[in-house]
Amino acid sequence: MKEFLTEDFLLETKTAARLYYDYAADLPIVDYHCHLSPEDIAKDRQFENITRAWLEGDHYKWRAMRTMGVDEKNITGSADDRDKFIAWAKTVPYTMRNPLYHWTHMELQKPFGINILLNEDNADEVYDKSSGLLQQPDFSTQGILKKMKVEVVCTTDDPVEGLEYHQMFRKEDGPIMLPTFRPDKAYAVDNIQSWNDYVDRLAEVSGVEISSFYNLMDALESRIDYFHANGCRLSDHGLTHLHFQLCNEIEINNLFTQMRQNKEISPSKKEVFRYAVLIKLSRMYHARGWVQQYHLGALRNTNLSKLEVNGPDSGYDSIGDFPQAQKMQQFFNRLQNTDQLTKTIIYNLNPADNEIFATMTGNFQESGTKGKIQWGSAWWFLDQKEGIEKQLNTLSNMGLLSTFIGMLTDSRSFLSFPRHEYFRRILCNMLGNDVENGLLPNDDQWLGKLVSDICYYNARNYFKFDAAHQEALNSKGQLNRKSTSTT
Amino acid sequence: MKEFLTEDFLLETKTAARLYYDYAADLPIVDYHCHLSPEDIAKDRQFENITRAWLEGDHYKWRAMRTMGVDEKNITGSADDRDKFIAWAKTVPYTMRNPLYHWTHMELQKPFGINILLNEDNADEVYDKSSGLLQQPDFSTQGILKKMKVEVVCTTDDPVEGLEYHQMFRKEDGPIMLPTFRPDKAYAVDNIQSWNDYVDRLAEVSGVEISSFYNLMDALESRIDYFHANGCRLSDHGLTHLHFQLCNEIEINNLFTQMRQNKEISPSKKEVFRYAVLIKLSRMYHARGWVQQYHLGALRNTNLSKLEVNGPDSGYDSIGDFPQAQKMQQFFNRLQNTDQLTKTIIYNLNPADNEIFATMTGNFQESGTKGKIQWGSAWWFLDQKEGIEKQLNTLSNMGLLSTFIGMLTDSRSFLSFPRHEYFRRILCNMLGNDVENGLLPNDDQWLGKLVSDICYYNARNYFKFDAAHQEALNSKGQLNRKSTSTT
Amino acid sequence: MKEFLTEDFLLETKTAARLYYDYAADLPIVDYHCHLSPEDIAKDRQFENITRAWLEGDHYKWRAMRTMGVDEKNITGSADDRDKFIAWAKTVPYTMRNPLYHWTHMELQKPFGINILLNEDNADEVYDKSSGLLQQPDFSTQGILKKMKVEVVCTTDDPVEGLEYHQMFRKEDGPIMLPTFRPDKAYAVDNIQSWNDYVDRLAEVSGVEISSFYNLMDALESRIDYFHANGCRLSDHGLTHLHFQLCNEIEINNLFTQMRQNKEISPSKKEVFRYAVLIKLSRMYHARGWVQQYHLGALRNTNLSKLEVNGPDSGYDSIGDFPQAQKMQQFFNRLQNTDQLTKTIIYNLNPADNEIFATMTGNFQESGTKGKIQWGSAWWFLDQKEGIEKQLNTLSNMGLLSTFIGMLTDSRSFLSFPRHEYFRRILCNMLGNDVENGLLPNDDQWLGKLVSDICYYNARNYFKFDAAHQEALNSKGQLNRKSTSTT
Repeated sequence: MKEFLTEDFLLETKTAARLYYDYAADLPIVDYHCHLSPEDIAKDRQFENITRAWLEGDHYKWRAMRTMGVDEKNITGSADDRDKFIAWAKTVPYTMRNPLYHWTHMELQKPFGINILLNEDNADEVYDKSSGLLQQPDFSTQGILKKMKVEVVCTTDDPVEGLEYHQMFRKEDGPIMLPTFRPDKAYAVDNIQSWNDYVDRLAEVSGVEISSFYNLMDALESRIDYFHANGCRLSDHGLTHLHFQLCNEIEINNLFTQMRQNKEISPSKKEVFRYAVLIKLSRMYHARGWVQQYHLGALRNTNLSKLEVNGPDSGYDSIGDFPQAQKMQQFFNRLQNTDQLTKTIIYNLNPADNEIFATMTGNFQESGTKGKIQWGSAWWFLDQKEGIEKQLNTLSNMGLLSTFIGMLTDSRSFLSFPRHEYFRRILCNMLGNDVENGLLPNDDQWLGKLVSDICYYNARNYFKFDAAHQEALNSKGQLNRKSTSTT
Repeated sequence: MKEFLTEDFLLETKTAARLYYDYAADLPIVDYHCHLSPEDIAKDRQFENITRAWLEGDHYKWRAMRTMGVDEKNITGSADDRDKFIAWAKTVPYTMRNPLYHWTHMELQKPFGINILLNEDNADEVYDKSSGLLQQPDFSTQGILKKMKVEVVCTTDDPVEGLEYHQMFRKEDGPIMLPTFRPDKAYAVDNIQSWNDYVDRLAEVSGVEISSFYNLMDALESRIDYFHANGCRLSDHGLTHLHFQLCNEIEINNLFTQMRQNKEISPSKKEVFRYAVLIKLSRMYHARGWVQQYHLGALRNTNLSKLEVNGPDSGYDSIGDFPQAQKMQQFFNRLQNTDQLTKTIIYNLNPADNEIFATMTGNFQESGTKGKIQWGSAWWFLDQKEGIEKQLNTLSNMGLLSTFIGMLTDSRSFLSFPRHEYFRRILCNMLGNDVENGLLPNDDQWLGKLVSDICYYNARNYFKFDAAHQEALNSKGQLNRKSTSTT
Repeated sequence: MKEFLTEDFLLETKTAARLYYDYAADLPIVDYHCHLSPEDIAKDRQFENITRAWLEGDHYKWRAMRTMGVDEKNITGSADDRDKFIAWAKTVPYTMRNPLYHWTHMELQKPFGINILLNEDNADEVYDKSSGLLQQPDFSTQGILKKMKVEVVCTTDDPVEGLEYHQMFRKEDGPIMLPTFRPDKAYAVDNIQSWNDYVDRLAEVSGVEISSFYNLMDALESRIDYFHANGCRLSDHGLTHLHFQLCNEIEINNLFTQMRQNKEISPSKKEVFRYAVLIKLSRMYHARGWVQQYHLGALRNTNLSKLEVNGPDSGYDSIGDFPQAQKMQQFFNRLQNTDQLTKTIIYNLNPADNEIFATMTGNFQESGTKGKIQWGSAWWFLDQKEGIEKQLNTLSNMGLLSTFIGMLTDSRSFLSFPRHEYFRRILCNMLGNDVENGLLPNDDQWLGKLVSDICYYNARNYFKFDAAHQEALNSKGQLNRKSTSTT
């Protein structure tokens, strides 16, 4: 009988414990994809209380509370912070076997040092203690980053962002914060009106008059250059699937013109347009040596009446069953054909697609780069013990685990960094079981190397964020537009 | 080395055994979805022999025998009952690792007390002993229900059914039998001729002249009211996928008219029609506070030459790969928009869809109801140890296991109630493993509460069958048509 | 702590070890599907060195090396054999958890007796030792077959093959080599020009002038008869999915005529044509009592720039997500309708389809044949411990494991036969765990029988290769065209 959440949590064998404590536990964190607020980091926000740090924006917890039938007032509504916390505390014992139960208690342990199983009875006590700690200087956002040994954090940013908080925070020492270029709105033509508003905004920010498809891409390229000058080496895209629909440039420009006049176009024309933007962006990333990320397969905003009240990313998204393989292959092949396929990370939300993603990466690996095409870490609904294990197992079986760049939080909360610890423990546990079952040689040194590569060094070598940060420091973030013809 | 099928069957840890025996084993059964014959229950049928009780209609066993190459004569054909039983007994040792092997021996243990591994050699002995017991009064259908502690049984009934057996059986004491409204034939327009015959029959039974789509819905609504008056609070639908295809009422009525004239319509028009019927039914269910069930993803009647000989539900159905997520979301969103989404249970047959179903429920949960939208228990081909474990794990990871309404037999046989025991043991085993591996706190009392909720109390609270039964007793089943305008 | 790769490798329980050593280890191998070269076997090739025997054509290893960023020169390029081997040896420690790591060391153990963990440091030593052994007479291709107890090997052959190596090798004693009829090119109309070239070649080889669709089928039938006379009783098809698109013969012939004039036809017409060829072939197989195999779901030749350099089957294929169930059912149902569905094995590449394939088989099983329709062994990317376990578990849950015809190598290398040992150990381990966990009775004798059936006897009984071989010997391979009207 093992106790809950002690130091050998998730570590079922001695080999696992050795691997974890000798090779993983103390490594810094490269959190190369998250949704933290650059402003909160740059301004070193001090949270008023645990509700603000923990429940604000955390739609995982919101969904759990709704499933319990909790009044929305106490979730996203007008209730005061303490009451919202109590509503969550009441829910916690009912989340057993959900990752929220593990996360909750790991996050109370670190950074707060609270070793208690949260429930209705101790809710006030926990609220007071954690909120009190959050008032202390070393529990500011930067304080937490330091406590959690976060070396790099990549935020997720729209092309129209000015990146002033990234600039404000940029310095020689301490953690690095870099932006990620996420241009989803530039091809979000489901809603033509919103898209037009966005294009107007992009024109304004970039200073490019956007009267053609070419102008649109020029404006985006100027923002890519601006992001690049600010240390960005990473893009991200949220899509149901990778688009592929060949088309000549005249037709694409016609579609652009129609939409700019607020005319609706057919779904298949939208696919044409999305593909055209995506493929050109991808060539721009390649020209600059960026890494591109594709998060594929979410079914978003399913509950439109709630969308109106709560907005997007409020817990009304789920997993879709979109065909993935053929168009993804065509998209990558198109880039490969002209040798313009840059380093790429693909993330799937539907675990039924695990094997498709795992084997797709192998089609486009290339001499000279270790693990050029990556199958990203278990994401969102899959970010739990079983989901992580399945991703690691399938990656092992169909690719090379040893080349994996590992974990990220994808979180909106500063308290989510223990997810890296969770991942590292699970990884070490799997290897430990393999060793003790005779499936792998008992070679701590080699396995330890693989562990520390996966938990830290592979990501460092893959992204080279230090160099990007240093270049940004040197250039002082000035816009440094390259005239490369990339498309 | 554990012995086979002893009291700690499926219980790998002491914690599991404690949870099972202290919190699950003795609970009554709420079998909220099955295919038992109301007539057999009401008339307290006494089976002639074990073949009649066990092999009649059990297409799981038929498929296994066919896979062994057994002559169809001994499966569904003209062989006598003893020979059919012997054919099954010969097959049993070849079913090892199939759920049939466990079920077979659990069902011999309970209710028959036969502790033997069935095979060709002991087939006659088992046949005689079990058939002898079936002659005894306490082995009548009602006797078996009592022995198995069945508190509620919900049969599955066509709208044209008179429910006379439900009325006959209805009484203050003892088990409750309630009907379930399953109107599949009302939109089964794959075969227009059969559909027309059915509509004629519905007109006759409901007393509504059906000359328009509105009449059809009126007729169905009058049957819903009739079922409601007879204690029904539950509907069920068998579909490849949830339909969604918007359309105006004039066009739908035109489709209706064409089909009533025996004219074929296109597949996409059939989708339109099915959706129109389904969405209106769903609003009717909502108006009455019913629970709606959707069994999705079967590929039925695959072997047409056998269909002609053996009819439907004879073991020629399998698992399909129909897209599920988008239309399901649209269907539920449409209802949600007007606040007409009633309590819902969705069941998937393809386990590749597990995560889609598990996460879809979270999009439509609501303040004030615990677990309003349920992902139903592992169904049909998935009703086995691994299938149940996967469903429970995915439900845990992506929703709240604690709110689950648990198991049902879905069976056509009175001997299938040990499937509840099977489920309960598996559930307790999973929790026991988690506790002993340090993944959950060692808290019998709390986990015991969750176990008994999942095995019994959640279903009781969700369905409120007692109240429905009481209302039916009071109303004496009289038709009590509400004039609510629900569509 | 178990040591790596000792005699109880993969055998976690004593029951597993007993089952393996008493009932599986010593059985001969029936390798009913592989891609070995008939010429290499007939001419008793002696490999120059381990690179030729091990890395030549092994795209599994190539993918792993590419993922490590190894220079293509050292993979499929101009580097010398020793350097290529060293590049592989360097990669090996990075393949931990991939099946390549187990296969590599099992294959060094058998047949070479090299008990070493291959890496950069010992690469030269292993190269020299294994290459030296390969010079010895008992390490010729036939020597290896003998060492590995291979009783039957079925190669994979195009209809235009002359089968002269099969004839050359055919003899009363020793292993049997039989051809498999793989007519993929006869309906490979993605590239009309290549298809036309192929049809010309087929006309030449068969002596049938091919000026109509009927002629095409006649030519194929004459090749089927030729293969049959040479002991072939097995066909194989590589497809994204089973096609089904009804059409009249006049239209099919028109499509044929257009394509013979090098005219492009639409994708849906191609589907029509493929179906027409496939269904007619299937009827021909049925008329001769053959077994037909369908390998479904690969996404091939994804990287066109590499295809040009390296050709097909070079490691640029992956797993697709093609719909499978409906058309497969329609295809089989069509054959069943006229009682022309022959013994069939279906293999899926996407494990998300496991349950579809497992349950599809049950729809078409038939009186008088044990396991007539088989769900084939875990294939290609799925040929690893977890993939095999999932296939065996799903087969167990949804069909009858006991009727399974078991493993095959599907390999291009003479060193891959330990995959049978790998499979057998995994199978015994699963049964051993079940027994020791009380999920199966502790009955070595019965379980041993099931094990040896699955590992050897079921395949023998299913295929009856001995009789086919004997008939070929008797007929001396002469063409023996039957005038059966099969279509």
